[in-house]
Amino acid sequence: MIFGAILAGGVGSRMGEDIPKQFLDIEGKPVILYSLEKFLQSPRMDLVFIGVSEPWLDYTRELVQKYLPENAHRVHIVLGGSGRNDTLQNIIAAIDKVRTGDPKDIIVTHDAARPFVKLRMIEENIDAALQCGAVNTVCPAIDTIVMSQDGVTISDIPNKLLMYYGHSPQSFQIDLLKRLYSTLTQEEKDILTDACKICSLRGQEVALVKSEYTNLKITTPGDYLIAKAYVAAGIHLQE
Amino acid sequence: MIFGAILAGGVGSRMGEDIPKQFLDIEGKPVILYSLEKFLQSPRMDLVFIGVSEPWLDYTRELVQKYLPENAHRVHIVLGGSGRNDTLQNIIAAIDKVRTGDPKDIIVTHDAARPFVKLRMIEENIDAALQCGAVNTVCPAIDTIVMSQDGVTISDIPNKLLMYYGHSPQSFQIDLLKRLYSTLTQEEKDILTDACKICSLRGQEVALVKSEYTNLKITTPGDYLIAKAYVAAGIHLQE
Repeated sequence: MIFGAILAGGVGSRMGEDIPKQFLDIEGKPVILYSLEKFLQSPRMDLVFIGVSEPWLDYTRELVQKYLPENAHRVHIVLGGSGRNDTLQNIIAAIDKVRTGDPKDIIVTHDAARPFVKLRMIEENIDAALQCGAVNTVCPAIDTIVMSQDGVTISDIPNKLLMYYGHSPQSFQIDLLKRLYSTLTQEEKDILTDACKICSLRGQEVALVKSEYTNLKITTPGDYLIAKAYVAAGIHLQE
Repeated sequence: MIFGAILAGGVGSRMGEDIPKQFLDIEGKPVILYSLEKFLQSPRMDLVFIGVSEPWLDYTRELVQKYLPENAHRVHIVLGGSGRNDTLQNIIAAIDKVRTGDPKDIIVTHDAARPFVKLRMIEENIDAALQCGAVNTVCPAIDTIVMSQDGVTISDIPNKLLMYYGHSPQSFQIDLLKRLYSTLTQEEKDILTDACKICSLRGQEVALVKSEYTNLKITTPGDYLIAKAYVAAGIHLQE
């Protein structure tokens, strides 16, 4: 089975607004709906789980009923945890209750604040996860990447041609991810918020799917401006 | 002496427009004017050199006369080279003809397509270059940075807390940069388009100055949208 996992547990403190960024409005529709609709467009997607913080549970349920009444039976709302990892673990626990247990069952995880994911990326994530076990969606770095151990002087400037920005979706064979996660110490669980990094650290091959620069994560008020400009320009409609 | 070096040699092929991105209009003013004005605001800046490709030489001279007639004597237009390094070398050659030769003479280099540099960054670049010899302007990475040797699978996900996006200005003691550049092989000159990387490779300490996310480089049509939104929001007026 194939499951979507939209991570919407964030409370959006960096935006300086009352509403978490995944619930901000863009032309009459909350940000989270843009990616949720794309996930539901995938014919292979059995169910999409959304992890949200407690105060937003009912609101998210209402959004799904309002915008996607015909698909509401394919969407499950789950209580998120205190961080990204916890939210993902809560979703996996909820998935475990409904899945048949095929070792090739796939979870396609996605940031709720990345509204411009394309169906093509989701499909390629599923294909690559079935084949390789773990997948990240990335695009080549635009800026030179600079490494600094102390934040004061440069330690290294790695070859830019080898550097990518890590976006989402990130996809995994569920049993594989659970197995790797169970090997983490508590300290590692606190540090490792990126599930692909967990795979990489434990020697699990992670395949790359091509992202696009438009697949931005809304983090700052500037990003929100960009996202609104993208919707005005029809970026969300591009295949 | 302190010299500005605005690198405007690019021809903007990635924008899919006829006009290089540094000459695109934002609210009645070409992109390059935004950073040029900031450079001229620095009281320590003796002269600002602009390196442009041959077809844009006269146009750039006219822009300076039109928008900055009272400061035109502080601006020198220089023919750019085929790449970023060549343009920088042409500017350094032109500076060598006017400078007194103080070993602490500084060059503050900047991308013409980064209109939202702040005077604060320029001043901190000068201070740090006087002290350390080489400076990069950077901000903490937003996306997880992923390294891939083959573009197919992940090789490494370095610790995000140590990763920065390299912006500009980049500043150098001129004699130091010339000395390091003279040690490069032709192959290295072709590969190393980033002067801070040249310093880093040769063991020269490079200090960091804090950039901001708004200090974006206009590379794609989406960036141009953002830049116009930033000007509409008054970002270019912020100290």
